[in-house]
Amino acid sequence: MSADVAASSQGPLAMICGGGALPMAVADYVAARGRKVVLFPLSGAADGLPVERYPHHRIRIGQIGKFMRLARAEGARDVVFIGSLVRPRILHTIPDFKAWTMMPRIIAAFRGGDDHLLTGMARLLEDEGFNLRGAHEVAPEILAPAGVLGGVQPSEADRADIEFGLDYLDGASPFDIGQAVVVANRHVLAVEAVEGTDLMLARVGELRANGRIRGASGRGVMVKAPKRNQDRRFDLPSIGPRTVEGIARGGLAGIAVVAEATVIAEAEALIAAADRAGIFIVSVPERRP
Amino acid sequence: MSADVAASSQGPLAMICGGGALPMAVADYVAARGRKVVLFPLSGAADGLPVERYPHHRIRIGQIGKFMRLARAEGARDVVFIGSLVRPRILHTIPDFKAWTMMPRIIAAFRGGDDHLLTGMARLLEDEGFNLRGAHEVAPEILAPAGVLGGVQPSEADRADIEFGLDYLDGASPFDIGQAVVVANRHVLAVEAVEGTDLMLARVGELRANGRIRGASGRGVMVKAPKRNQDRRFDLPSIGPRTVEGIARGGLAGIAVVAEATVIAEAEALIAAADRAGIFIVSVPERRP
Repeated sequence: MSADVAASSQGPLAMICGGGALPMAVADYVAARGRKVVLFPLSGAADGLPVERYPHHRIRIGQIGKFMRLARAEGARDVVFIGSLVRPRILHTIPDFKAWTMMPRIIAAFRGGDDHLLTGMARLLEDEGFNLRGAHEVAPEILAPAGVLGGVQPSEADRADIEFGLDYLDGASPFDIGQAVVVANRHVLAVEAVEGTDLMLARVGELRANGRIRGASGRGVMVKAPKRNQDRRFDLPSIGPRTVEGIARGGLAGIAVVAEATVIAEAEALIAAADRAGIFIVSVPERRP
Repeated sequence: MSADVAASSQGPLAMICGGGALPMAVADYVAARGRKVVLFPLSGAADGLPVERYPHHRIRIGQIGKFMRLARAEGARDVVFIGSLVRPRILHTIPDFKAWTMMPRIIAAFRGGDDHLLTGMARLLEDEGFNLRGAHEVAPEILAPAGVLGGVQPSEADRADIEFGLDYLDGASPFDIGQAVVVANRHVLAVEAVEGTDLMLARVGELRANGRIRGASGRGVMVKAPKRNQDRRFDLPSIGPRTVEGIARGGLAGIAVVAEATVIAEAEALIAAADRAGIFIVSVPERRP
């Protein structure tokens, strides 16, 4: 589906934008295909993005009614969620939703894991006649290609740790936990849950600094993979230059992601940073369930 | 087996002691059965314990040769590991082992997960004619009884979170990760790996403080269970008053452990602290694989 959707230009694309480099990159890729984009930067998350380069309307988390009104006025029916977003506190979000009749379903969406939240939001939009698209569907350029990215190669031991990490993530997948795990010598050093990848990597650095992690620096792999059955239209695993900083601080050897199922932010900067730090980035073929 | 071993008094019991309240409690229970105990407090871990109350010999981590010589001189063949022990850094441990011929197996033991480490140590001792016993085998008083401990009852929602947490721990068990997970509203908030339970609970408190965890304080359960196939002669899950402090700081509702498979340190202080904090402690029957 990826190809034709990416190629299609059935009216403007509405992009609900969080933070980071991805929203503008995706907007540029889509615009380069000759498709109009309309940005909806989320206050607090997307502040500072050069959204002026495209038609845009600032919205706050929870202003789904406002979003739908403006998107319809722009003639946009395809919608993409893109960019980083710290999970909102429902207590902060409720007031924005007050006028709105779907509160019970919003609350239900918040109750579950992240997938549950995003899938719930998706359904709400689709019930209103919008089509949720994955950013990788409209801009396939952002997906990690298969193979070793950059100049550093994983060792055989690293490959074994990667398989071990993928085994764990497969097993943990039904529980909708995080998408990442750190493995060294087939020993799990850290598991990502609500704290997110950056805080998990910071923890690994601290544990290494205070001796809770044995072995020399430069061993260990962060393995990041999409959860089985997660809705890939949003929340695909992603890595970027900041991930490399975390890997270096954690004293790890490298990063393993799943090819064509991982979003890469600032690919050139990512690979340059990894090569400078002597960190490998390998993109492995997806396992079939 | 528990009963008869506990009842047996086949010579003195050698106790290799880490920190915390358990070593002296176990020594007292065993001595009360009329069995002689000889303590081997580990420097750095067991400092400050009133070991003077029993015959004792201080040893450093890695001095297995010295331990075996002294234990044999005391006529002790049964050995117990008991108390808290931060996993040693192998680089700090190697010098102590230098003179010793089993280094390759020690290193192999260190390479794997915690179970692997302890099981490796156990095998080394048994090859030398010692019998490794679980502290709960010689002092069954330290095991958590089934039921709600203390005055606070878990809610139906808490019970659902406990089942969810046990499901996750069952699935993660083959990977020899930590023994604990924090679940709220069937959503995994944190998974314990190398950092240990206390640091995991501190993380939950921080995530709640900075809004990364939704929902009011007072929801969520820490579920702690032994790993399948772990050697229960050591490293059974344990909880104590300090665990309750962590639960309170994490804004959680309570603790769930597995009956007869969890060590309770300072039971009276634990239950008093939990009741004061309005935290439940429930000890659930073990699931059969």
